[in-house]
Amino acid sequence: MKTVYSPLHHGHSGYFEFCNGAFVPGFEKPVRAEFIRSRIEEVGLGPILAPVAHGIGPAQGVHTADYLAFLADAWTLWTAMDRHTPALPMVWPIPGLRADKPPKSIDGLLGFYSLDTGAPIVAGTYPAVVASLESAITAADLVRNGERAAFALCRPPGHHAGSRFMGGYCYVNNAAAAAQHFRDNGAARVAILDVDYHHGNGTQEIFYSRADVMVVNLHGDPLTEYPFLLGHADEHGSGPGEGFNVNYPMPHGTDYAVWGAALDDACRKVAAYKPDVVVVSLGVDTFEKDPISHFLLKTPDYPKIGRRIAELGLPTLFVMEGGYAVAEIAVNAVGVLTGFEGE
Amino acid sequence: MKTVYSPLHHGHSGYFEFCNGAFVPGFEKPVRAEFIRSRIEEVGLGPILAPVAHGIGPAQGVHTADYLAFLADAWTLWTAMDRHTPALPMVWPIPGLRADKPPKSIDGLLGFYSLDTGAPIVAGTYPAVVASLESAITAADLVRNGERAAFALCRPPGHHAGSRFMGGYCYVNNAAAAAQHFRDNGAARVAILDVDYHHGNGTQEIFYSRADVMVVNLHGDPLTEYPFLLGHADEHGSGPGEGFNVNYPMPHGTDYAVWGAALDDACRKVAAYKPDVVVVSLGVDTFEKDPISHFLLKTPDYPKIGRRIAELGLPTLFVMEGGYAVAEIAVNAVGVLTGFEGE
Repeated sequence: MKTVYSPLHHGHSGYFEFCNGAFVPGFEKPVRAEFIRSRIEEVGLGPILAPVAHGIGPAQGVHTADYLAFLADAWTLWTAMDRHTPALPMVWPIPGLRADKPPKSIDGLLGFYSLDTGAPIVAGTYPAVVASLESAITAADLVRNGERAAFALCRPPGHHAGSRFMGGYCYVNNAAAAAQHFRDNGAARVAILDVDYHHGNGTQEIFYSRADVMVVNLHGDPLTEYPFLLGHADEHGSGPGEGFNVNYPMPHGTDYAVWGAALDDACRKVAAYKPDVVVVSLGVDTFEKDPISHFLLKTPDYPKIGRRIAELGLPTLFVMEGGYAVAEIAVNAVGVLTGFEGE
Repeated sequence: MKTVYSPLHHGHSGYFEFCNGAFVPGFEKPVRAEFIRSRIEEVGLGPILAPVAHGIGPAQGVHTADYLAFLADAWTLWTAMDRHTPALPMVWPIPGLRADKPPKSIDGLLGFYSLDTGAPIVAGTYPAVVASLESAITAADLVRNGERAAFALCRPPGHHAGSRFMGGYCYVNNAAAAAQHFRDNGAARVAILDVDYHHGNGTQEIFYSRADVMVVNLHGDPLTEYPFLLGHADEHGSGPGEGFNVNYPMPHGTDYAVWGAALDDACRKVAAYKPDVVVVSLGVDTFEKDPISHFLLKTPDYPKIGRRIAELGLPTLFVMEGGYAVAEIAVNAVGVLTGFEGE
């Protein structure tokens, strides 16, 4: 399996995040991607390719133009205020405030386009975001051109980013943009299977009223887990999208016996949808030792995930999302990929 | 003029806030209220009374029951997670997420009931919030019982708190609760005049569709000033409240020549409404030396504000809101009150 990777992700670093009331170094840091890249070389998964330059264009089908313009300009606007810390928002467009009138101040704009405090912006963020998107699109093109599967080693991740908001370490929704890219190039139906511990709220929001992209999520119950405010079992899609959004929220302590059964059910639903291609939002923070999650999957479970997905017999794009146990993230993420390949 | 004040506000302290990308000690701190209390004694404004015990009850007409239950429980839920830092939210119910299904986790609840990161909760917050509310209600009762005016030296302030959210240093909307208290006890119409530098978004939200409480705000333009996402001139009220919400957003650098003309216009609108009582949300962060604001009012301007409000000839309740230039806040706030009294 070929991997697409860009070193530009290194520029997205050096920020802090809110966690449990404190300001701590970001969990989502460059070494995550480097561990995975090294493991790919170690097991000989296949060649690692640089992304083809596409710019931000492929994000335009899944994000609003004003949001993308904000992302491109945010660091410049922030530093123009003589600020040199990472840019973070301070107020959000909740019910009772206006989401229809963007402010002019960068302090207002940061919140206007965010869902949380989890998407800091530094000098290297935008170049990393574009390269991450380009990696997803380039890997999608490998699949479009005949590869059975490809792996986009994206960083930053994408599945929390919605049509007009960043958050949860995510800026551009790489998996959603790749799904749209498949649709724009001949695929009639695309299924997105999100196995990250956290609900892919952005992906759900983007495709919620569409029948041409099915979104299936396995995740920690939002009653007790980030993002808290989306991902319940009663969210089925709306309008033409009714029935094409499926959530499997699961409680703390879920192990592979339960999680694997949910994956099996999810794969049956994907198969029944008869998509032309599957996009897997690959998070491995379901791991028992992940520092911010509460499932109990073990390292030998990850190849089983890959094998079950391979049984679908469909062209498959893997897009990297979360997973923060830096020592084991690589073994587990690559385990899914080698499992898919039947090893 | 009598003042109502409780020392319980001291318990609401020791937290940090986000500001310009950094985590800094809160601007809204106990010394604010103490400076004002000392100044009241110094100029002999009148007696300082303790609030009558009412509990949270008087907030029930302007906040939802679930929000008030959250406020009462938040610190207990936070410390039950073995957290000892001030409680702060991490994700908000923006469009695309659900505002209809409260999470069970305190991390989720904090954001579900917030508009920003500006309302930290510590052990002493809830007792201070209740005492602040009680001060407003007790002062309102002084006016109901025949005093021409009274001053509620509230801390924490209230005007950013909406029907179901805290934010901007505010938890319970003291001015809104006092206005509702007047309505519940015989007043046919109440006008709220908010002269704080920041738009009183919570007060506007609470009464936006009601004709029995007029809300008039003079403030920094939200295009460039907190709260950024409400307070534009085109917000006139809705439904039965159409025409009973008036905003005067003004740009950076506004001085008393311009600000005072807006106050005069606002007072004409209040007079035309023929309210039985006026509630003044009194912020003095319009001061030229305020560290986080951008108007240019000078100390001699504050008595003029009081005199203009006195010309309405109406029973008047002053409720303390913002103002962070601690050295001068007292002179300016009390200057409004002595100006009202004709000194």
